[in-house]
Amino acid sequence: MEFEDVTFKPIGVVHSQYRQAKDTPVQPLFAQGSPGRIEVFAPYAEGLSDIEGFSHLHLLYWLHKAGPAALRVVPFLDDKPHGIFATRSPNRPNPIGLSIVRLRERRGALLFIEDVDILDGTPLLDIKPYFVRCDAREGARSGWTDTIDEEVQSRRGACGGVACPSVDHEPLALDRSRR
Amino acid sequence: MEFEDVTFKPIGVVHSQYRQAKDTPVQPLFAQGSPGRIEVFAPYAEGLSDIEGFSHLHLLYWLHKAGPAALRVVPFLDDKPHGIFATRSPNRPNPIGLSIVRLRERRGALLFIEDVDILDGTPLLDIKPYFVRCDAREGARSGWTDTIDEEVQSRRGACGGVACPSVDHEPLALDRSRR
Repeated sequence: MEFEDVTFKPIGVVHSQYRQAKDTPVQPLFAQGSPGRIEVFAPYAEGLSDIEGFSHLHLLYWLHKAGPAALRVVPFLDDKPHGIFATRSPNRPNPIGLSIVRLRERRGALLFIEDVDILDGTPLLDIKPYFVRCDAREGARSGWTDTIDEEVQSRRGACGGVACPSVDHEPLALDRSRR
Repeated sequence: MEFEDVTFKPIGVVHSQYRQAKDTPVQPLFAQGSPGRIEVFAPYAEGLSDIEGFSHLHLLYWLHKAGPAALRVVPFLDDKPHGIFATRSPNRPNPIGLSIVRLRERRGALLFIEDVDILDGTPLLDIKPYFVRCDAREGARSGWTDTIDEEVQSRRGACGGVACPSVDHEPLALDRSRR
């Protein structure tokens, strides 16, 4: 079975404090609360209507600085190689990134976000709201990462090579920190 | 700011029982447990190594049958229009779909999955493991969908127009149903 290629056009850009891949934090302690800004290009701004009701968003973006695609990678969290589709490494056959960020404020076509682990200047492909009923799967098994010691996870500060805030699962913590 | 377009090449195909968009269920009661199969093309099969340790996967796919892009849509769950980026409607500027499915079994380059709300023959762009620590945000606010009556949500059977199983949050339920 063969498919044609598919071409997408960035709808915006992610701004963050991380100018180089090597400086982009993978430590939750650094990424948590790390501020950023999404600029949605004018032709798409109307699509943001009502987005301010969501506390969390999925961002899909082009990992435009990713290295060459690899089928096995040693993720940040481990010393052993794993299949690329069992990791969140950026060096994927199709370098599409997925991050869940907190939405703090919308001002027109600008979204002020937190928990940003995305390189400054990253081309944005899509924004999807995070629906707790669909997207939160508390019981999920997390494969090889489940075998990594909790202390090591915290120290290495990554979920499969992608930084993630790990302490915002409790509604109270979320409510406390919201304006 | 302008970016160049980005082109991706499908890495596989999703098989399901849904041959036409109009038949694809948006009812959780139908989508829950709904079986499907991912066929990863041979050049990418090695990238599946260790994926069987994960109970849930993010699938990113090309919504190749989506209608023309719209900036405001009336989602299945509501009678009022919302910005496209505040919904999971397929008619997006970049028609990339995101679903969380359960992984039941891997046989070589075939993944047997459940909770499939994806049209048969859909071109697959990426597979990412679901990490509870990163991806489960129990406290999230879900915008306009929070104002839809629970009974209506169940009856209309959608989360923003995308079917989702809503009852697998408890680890026990997950364990019970696993082989």
